Amino acid sequence: MKGIQTIAFDADDTLWVNEPYFREVEDKFCGLLEDYLPHHTVAQELFKTEMENLSLYGYGVKGFMLAMIETILRVTENTASPLLIAKVLEYGKEQLNKDIELLDGVKEVLEALKGKYRLVVATKGDLLDQERKLNKSGLAHYFHHIEIMSDKKEKDYQKLLRHLDCPPEAFLMIGNSIKSDIMPVLAIGGHAIHIPYHTVWAHEVVEEEVKEERFYSFENITAILPKLLS
Amino acid sequence: MKGIQTIAFDADDTLWVNEPYFREVEDKFCGLLEDYLPHHTVAQELFKTEMENLSLYGYGVKGFMLAMIETILRVTENTASPLLIAKVLEYGKEQLNKDIELLDGVKEVLEALKGKYRLVVATKGDLLDQERKLNKSGLAHYFHHIEIMSDKKEKDYQKLLRHLDCPPEAFLMIGNSIKSDIMPVLAIGGHAIHIPYHTVWAHEVVEEEVKEERFYSFENITAILPKLLS
Repeated sequence: MKGIQTIAFDADDTLWVNEPYFREVEDKFCGLLEDYLPHHTVAQELFKTEMENLSLYGYGVKGFMLAMIETILRVTENTASPLLIAKVLEYGKEQLNKDIELLDGVKEVLEALKGKYRLVVATKGDLLDQERKLNKSGLAHYFHHIEIMSDKKEKDYQKLLRHLDCPPEAFLMIGNSIKSDIMPVLAIGGHAIHIPYHTVWAHEVVEEEVKEERFYSFENITAILPKLLS
Repeated sequence: MKGIQTIAFDADDTLWVNEPYFREVEDKFCGLLEDYLPHHTVAQELFKTEMENLSLYGYGVKGFMLAMIETILRVTENTASPLLIAKVLEYGKEQLNKDIELLDGVKEVLEALKGKYRLVVATKGDLLDQERKLNKSGLAHYFHHIEIMSDKKEKDYQKLLRHLDCPPEAFLMIGNSIKSDIMPVLAIGGHAIHIPYHTVWAHEVVEEEVKEERFYSFENITAILPKLLS
């Protein structure tokens, strides 16, 4: 990969575990409403609420908490015990306070790349929560910059590149979401590496196959090193 | 004011109306609980919940909504009608969807300063919400950059200055909060102009008097122009 100057890493499920924590909370949440609806129907109702509110709340745990509360009210037709709402607040706070679990090979990869490229984090989510996670991760010193993005569409990456003063052909994005980390970056002329993660939020799932010479896919993050250190 | 290169504007209650909208919602919220506690006691309980959760939720409407919900559960000892919770979601969404009301003189000031200084927005709050407000304000094109900060303490301004590649002596912050816009900026060697606003959130109130030669205070934003255009 010639000419790359800046490498941006997605954070959630690329540097550290994230989506499984959402799924854990979702499972407990569905349990709260089992007297009203089957588990998978509650999950569908929650996803519907999240999508309806996405443009208003954006990504992150606080919006997830508000969506769970709204789902309780709708599913129970405003008859739920307030104890269910209290449980949602408890689950959400637990999630915000979770320890950071780095994914295998992440530290080794950042150590090997540091000084050779400008490394940045480019992530969606709640501002404070993502900053806190980066600080707790112990990885902050590897990065020149953390960019918390309200979305990861083409225009958001264009803004990021202007901000980084980096031409697209010198930009490489590494992440687990084809929809958010790969396709928009390729569309604006950047390079992208997909590192799949076993758990993907329904909102991030895409069916299309990516075919593009600026695109690579590797099984795990350490596999990118030969490509970037040669 | 010699040597200023970058002027950062606080957004909420400096460029546009914000705190009165929080107070409006707070008033309606206190009304929801009037069967349980007097109005001013509910307001105190809400503030207490906000402060307890500030380090977890950060600033912004979503955290405010979650704090209102938690306050309902605590004040009513988990016996509230779910309809009260539904009202909070309704109020919060209305607040997120509010139109932007620019403060007097803001457009004129930005128009006069544009091209002469690098203008930025430096604001706390929810990422998506602040971006949306800037876009709705019609002011985005005046600014080189919008920085949404998880807090406005000295270290946050130091990070901003590194990011802007601006020495503190060339940096001027303009805002309505002595605590968040003025004191930390002066402490790191920058310049600051205070434009008071009639409504201040209790969390932002300080008693100290600011005495510093890099500090100015004006009654309204247009009054800064003679200082900056001479």
